[in-house]
Amino acid sequence: MKKIQVGLLGCGTVGTGVAKLLIEKKELISSRVGMEIILKHAADIDLETDRGITFEKGVLTTDAQAVINDPEIDIIVEMIGGTGIAREFIINAMDRGKHVVTANKALLATHGNEIFKLAGQKGLDIGYEASVGGCMPIIKSLRESLVANDIQSMTGILNGTCNYILSKITQDRSPFEHALSEAQAKGFAEADPTLDVEGFDTAHKLAILGALAYGTTINLEDIFVEGISKITPLDITFAEQFGYRIKLLAISKKRKNSFEARIHPTMIPANNLIANVHGSLNAVTVTGDAVGDTMLFGHGAGMMPTGSAVVSDVVDIARNIAGGNIGRVPGLSFQQDRIKTIPIMPIADLETHYYFRFSAQDRPGVLSRISGVLGNHDISLKSVIQKGRKAKGPVPLIMLTHLAREANVMKALDRLSELDVISDRPMVIRIEDSSLNHEKAVIRDE
Amino acid sequence: MKKIQVGLLGCGTVGTGVAKLLIEKKELISSRVGMEIILKHAADIDLETDRGITFEKGVLTTDAQAVINDPEIDIIVEMIGGTGIAREFIINAMDRGKHVVTANKALLATHGNEIFKLAGQKGLDIGYEASVGGCMPIIKSLRESLVANDIQSMTGILNGTCNYILSKITQDRSPFEHALSEAQAKGFAEADPTLDVEGFDTAHKLAILGALAYGTTINLEDIFVEGISKITPLDITFAEQFGYRIKLLAISKKRKNSFEARIHPTMIPANNLIANVHGSLNAVTVTGDAVGDTMLFGHGAGMMPTGSAVVSDVVDIARNIAGGNIGRVPGLSFQQDRIKTIPIMPIADLETHYYFRFSAQDRPGVLSRISGVLGNHDISLKSVIQKGRKAKGPVPLIMLTHLAREANVMKALDRLSELDVISDRPMVIRIEDSSLNHEKAVIRDE
Repeated sequence: MKKIQVGLLGCGTVGTGVAKLLIEKKELISSRVGMEIILKHAADIDLETDRGITFEKGVLTTDAQAVINDPEIDIIVEMIGGTGIAREFIINAMDRGKHVVTANKALLATHGNEIFKLAGQKGLDIGYEASVGGCMPIIKSLRESLVANDIQSMTGILNGTCNYILSKITQDRSPFEHALSEAQAKGFAEADPTLDVEGFDTAHKLAILGALAYGTTINLEDIFVEGISKITPLDITFAEQFGYRIKLLAISKKRKNSFEARIHPTMIPANNLIANVHGSLNAVTVTGDAVGDTMLFGHGAGMMPTGSAVVSDVVDIARNIAGGNIGRVPGLSFQQDRIKTIPIMPIADLETHYYFRFSAQDRPGVLSRISGVLGNHDISLKSVIQKGRKAKGPVPLIMLTHLAREANVMKALDRLSELDVISDRPMVIRIEDSSLNHEKAVIRDE
Repeated sequence: MKKIQVGLLGCGTVGTGVAKLLIEKKELISSRVGMEIILKHAADIDLETDRGITFEKGVLTTDAQAVINDPEIDIIVEMIGGTGIAREFIINAMDRGKHVVTANKALLATHGNEIFKLAGQKGLDIGYEASVGGCMPIIKSLRESLVANDIQSMTGILNGTCNYILSKITQDRSPFEHALSEAQAKGFAEADPTLDVEGFDTAHKLAILGALAYGTTINLEDIFVEGISKITPLDITFAEQFGYRIKLLAISKKRKNSFEARIHPTMIPANNLIANVHGSLNAVTVTGDAVGDTMLFGHGAGMMPTGSAVVSDVVDIARNIAGGNIGRVPGLSFQQDRIKTIPIMPIADLETHYYFRFSAQDRPGVLSRISGVLGNHDISLKSVIQKGRKAKGPVPLIMLTHLAREANVMKALDRLSELDVISDRPMVIRIEDSSLNHEKAVIRDE
């Protein structure tokens, strides 16, 4: 039986999951794959922690460089994370002719163009299924299953931390800070949650998906990113009154000579399947011109789900090595010489529906002044909720718009902030609800 | 650029979709795959119908055998359906060293063991992604993405006709016959709907999934099958009162030395993601020991969604041909010599929760007589709904059970049918609700 040897760099949570599967599922894997896949070395700076695995003698090491140098190792699995030493190790491993598997979305989103190019030049495979959506086979779907489709759009809940927090706020009507603390206590959020809650992790993932879907170079910088830290229970309650839920969505849509790529809290109809993905779970819908709407759903993180995706990449590459068929599927789905640079549409050009929540003085004429400014900026209203009078102080004033242009919305809000009847800059949440567009079309036809 | 030539047998709905994609998406496919995939011939008895495609001269033919014999053709795509001539053509093509792609679940469920064995012996690839769940990559997921997982269970809505009809009954509270007529009028059901509505098509699909998941030979005959034709709006209304929806589910669970494989209308909690898959759409959840719960969702049928899955198989095989890597992934996920014959658990051994709807005389003592018989068969009740008194005639009496054994349930119902207070054999619907089990455990602990 053929043998493929694997070197693991980084034996933290996911690295441990990978090691566990390669060791404990060796027999199952070989009964499927017809090869022995052997974890020859696992490198980590910490050899003391009990990882709940029985490593054979000599497997665990602190010397990552020696693992990379080992001529018997075919595949390097990088589970260190970050864009520093992980990048060096990967490039180093490729220079030594080793195939690479990684879950490192930050690295691929920032240095992917360089890494995939190098892999192509050297005739090496790179597996990165676990970089987006954990165990969901979204990378394989885009690279293989949807090969005959023009991808029209993608919508994803790609960060379990944010989805957990938003689910918590929705369920308990607790403020963001409480939900975040609870997520941290349960291990769903890091001590410094910025990367997750401000949407950057989601942006890393969308940068990768965009390239795969449309055949463009990876472009993280132009993705619009807005996190969830400003979402209040009040907004969730109003969303419900309109039949919506609020999710942090990664949204991408193909346009004529560009594509949309944006991350922001989004109101979506409560009966949408993706609106019913709760807690730390992930989901991604892909719309292709042949398949229509599809969705994948599963654990987006965690030791074993992510480990499972990493091992599926190891097996894919092992099959290619054994069959002499490296480069079977190009790294970024398209042939290297067919990858273009397609621009991301500036957010100012977005046309969508908006939810505004103003803190307004409860005085006669306020509504007409606000709607007047909006109207001057070509923003027409679909619904307005004005909350009952308080003894004194501002009251929430909720507005849903017809299709409006982001640039106009931002200009109008600047103008509105000058009005003395509004306390703060309003809360703005973008709405994705295609049924609203139809409704507008109907009104237009009248 | 490498060229792979394809021969299509059968140019009906899905065959036309395949032809459309191979012709119209040739450029997109080659920009991804780096090969030219050419539809050399499409055979059909009907050359007259306008299929909305411009075939090049000589592509369309009535001579399927000539297509199979053509030495330039690498891959035969069988889109005829059924277990007769389709089987002959496939074996014939394999005898000529041609790889095969098919969407024919009936054929694979009944002759798959023979066909996969022959392919293995001849060193040929068989693609069949489109046989289960249309465009959803469930076959690829089980064969590749979940390679490191022991599959613990699968639950699928795998027949769009049934899901459409059940969605219709739920939405309109119309009887089965009306919903069926509407499905037929809209093209979601055949003139003879038996294969779909009685669950046989779903069983074909589950037979394939079971083999893939557990490494067993395909065994259609022992799958328990019950269709949806007896479901009434009344049952749907009562299901709602208990927080359930009714779906025709394909259910499979791994047990110690066997596995469950059953198709029947099932009550599932309304907040389950799969309970929210409506209309003709399909979904399948797979639970693996590493990944936990995952779900795929999409169009389970239709010209372009199914065509897309077929083309993804063609591309996969083309990549293997070009790379000299045929048999890269074994046909049924496991190596041929590792495939066992694992028995399907007899339905009599099933332990689950049940919903009964009796038509009972509204007389004193009826409830105690019925529950007495159930109790004698070790069936204890969780909930009872007795509907208000009618002027005369039977009234519905609804019961939900704690965990009970199917064999006992059937015996009890036989005994109950002898009682003079019950009009007909009751409606029985199995419930899948793991939260009920926990609840029972709690009661037991008291």
